[in-house]
Amino acid sequence: MSLDHAASKPHDRLAAALTDEMDAVNVLIRDRMASEHAPRIPEVTAHLVEAGGKRLRPMLTLAAAKMCGYGGPYHVHLAATVEFIHTATLLHDDVVDESAQRRGRPTANLLWDNTSSVLVGDYLFARSFQLMVETGSLRVLDILANASATIAEGEVLQLTAASDLATSEAVYLQIVRGKTAALFSAALEVGGVIAQQDEALVKALYDYGDALGIGFQIVDDLLDYSGTDAIGKDVGDDFRERKLTLPVIKAVALADATERAFWVRTIEKGRQEDGDLQTALGLLVKHGTLDATKSDALAWMEKAKAALAPLPDHPIKLMLLDLADYVVARIK
Amino acid sequence: MSLDHAASKPHDRLAAALTDEMDAVNVLIRDRMASEHAPRIPEVTAHLVEAGGKRLRPMLTLAAAKMCGYGGPYHVHLAATVEFIHTATLLHDDVVDESAQRRGRPTANLLWDNTSSVLVGDYLFARSFQLMVETGSLRVLDILANASATIAEGEVLQLTAASDLATSEAVYLQIVRGKTAALFSAALEVGGVIAQQDEALVKALYDYGDALGIGFQIVDDLLDYSGTDAIGKDVGDDFRERKLTLPVIKAVALADATERAFWVRTIEKGRQEDGDLQTALGLLVKHGTLDATKSDALAWMEKAKAALAPLPDHPIKLMLLDLADYVVARIK
Repeated sequence: MSLDHAASKPHDRLAAALTDEMDAVNVLIRDRMASEHAPRIPEVTAHLVEAGGKRLRPMLTLAAAKMCGYGGPYHVHLAATVEFIHTATLLHDDVVDESAQRRGRPTANLLWDNTSSVLVGDYLFARSFQLMVETGSLRVLDILANASATIAEGEVLQLTAASDLATSEAVYLQIVRGKTAALFSAALEVGGVIAQQDEALVKALYDYGDALGIGFQIVDDLLDYSGTDAIGKDVGDDFRERKLTLPVIKAVALADATERAFWVRTIEKGRQEDGDLQTALGLLVKHGTLDATKSDALAWMEKAKAALAPLPDHPIKLMLLDLADYVVARIK
Repeated sequence: MSLDHAASKPHDRLAAALTDEMDAVNVLIRDRMASEHAPRIPEVTAHLVEAGGKRLRPMLTLAAAKMCGYGGPYHVHLAATVEFIHTATLLHDDVVDESAQRRGRPTANLLWDNTSSVLVGDYLFARSFQLMVETGSLRVLDILANASATIAEGEVLQLTAASDLATSEAVYLQIVRGKTAALFSAALEVGGVIAQQDEALVKALYDYGDALGIGFQIVDDLLDYSGTDAIGKDVGDDFRERKLTLPVIKAVALADATERAFWVRTIEKGRQEDGDLQTALGLLVKHGTLDATKSDALAWMEKAKAALAPLPDHPIKLMLLDLADYVVARIK
């Protein structure tokens, strides 16, 4: 990838605009993921933290604080907090998914074991909580405690609802909020709160993060059936793992008796045969649910952009608007 | 067990003295472990929360607050917080230990699966955090965030140190603080903090909990080699699971070359044969490490009782003194 091309991505422009702050976040992350007593901890976390994730969530916190003119030190703590919560959920997800790859590398639970993933995740969660306490803001603690509960609830909900054909679009939305949107919205909201913005602006930041996160996850779920560029993810993974996502939920709602029997067999009972993925894709096309899902993703991104309207003009605001467009550009 | 006998136990006298408060805690626990969206959550937690654990930790919080004359509502929140943190760690421990029994019932991860144990534990941890935020006390949040980090760190340390013959008594103590003492001491400390006691009394409560927890765990580890009444635990479990505990650590320090080779084979390499447990017990007796461990437990309990000296006379103070004696009475 050429540098020019890289510079055109809103994510990279955000990173460039927030270089000093992200450097401080990275220093704090390295400092706080250490453990005086248990060397296994930095071994496991370094593997994840150094793996070159995009650090999108901490950048959202820094972006919100900067747009709001924050001059104190605690946006750095909050950005590190958000990344720690995210990393802790990735570690626990690895156990849940028993997934073999994360960001193109073997997952921590294959390199070490499930127990390390569980316990180091717990450690990072506790460390994130210590970082929040340092900010001295109960409001921030409240927001991130609520986000953490929504994340865990969404993950549990996914366990039971993902292969249940009765799962509605409303339940899917709840799962998606837990998986993705709750931390996006909280990451932005705390940036505004620490900068002591008024409620309307804090709510605008929350709404942008919520809609961006939902749209982001819908795009991800759509690419699982239509994409070619999804890194580390093959087309049809969700189908093979019997995970109901929006394109299928919409197709189930429109299914005739024969089609319904197909979804019951493949998703609910998990008795999949050769050719089933092709049949499933055919049904999504027949009922136009890939297009309908794409429309939903576009609508969420319009909602995200509209949410930013109350915020004053700022170069970072433009990058956040572009970020919303960039996410859906993957499916255009 | 007769009621008279039951009434003689300090734990039961504490429960009787705190009936109203514990009722309020139980109501709050039931309310907060519910989930609007994910019915799996109360299924898993009810299994644990209703399983009739002793609720020792929340009682310690209530006891501290009552001794300190606290008149507000938040001791109930803090007691529920402490029980949620404890329950979350039990759920994650079940995954770590792959243990089949907890409190005489099948563990949640056998009734459901590892994933439910991990995610519902995360949910309870997030809920505990919300309860703390409601108290409005950053000091309380700080104490329980630090305790949570110590717990997770101790568990990770145990993963790597438990089968390593180089593990010292100092490392064992660190593990024990994580496994047991950190939550005991925090449970008591937050009871004093919420009652706005001066620092000397808060420290006294912390020190009592720390020593009680360490003594409690040493007794537990000793009973694994010498006990008959350990519920749901067979003699020699720690040996079979290759967990270095204090009696063995002391015996390894005194081992000759042949004995050391035995410990290397059985604990470090885990190549155990019939008769090894008897040989191990023989080495503990030969070096007097069961008696030495017992002396350590007694010393910690004396330290616990001495710590309470600065607290004013109160019926609950007498029960806490008796509780320390009761814990070591199991090995006398």
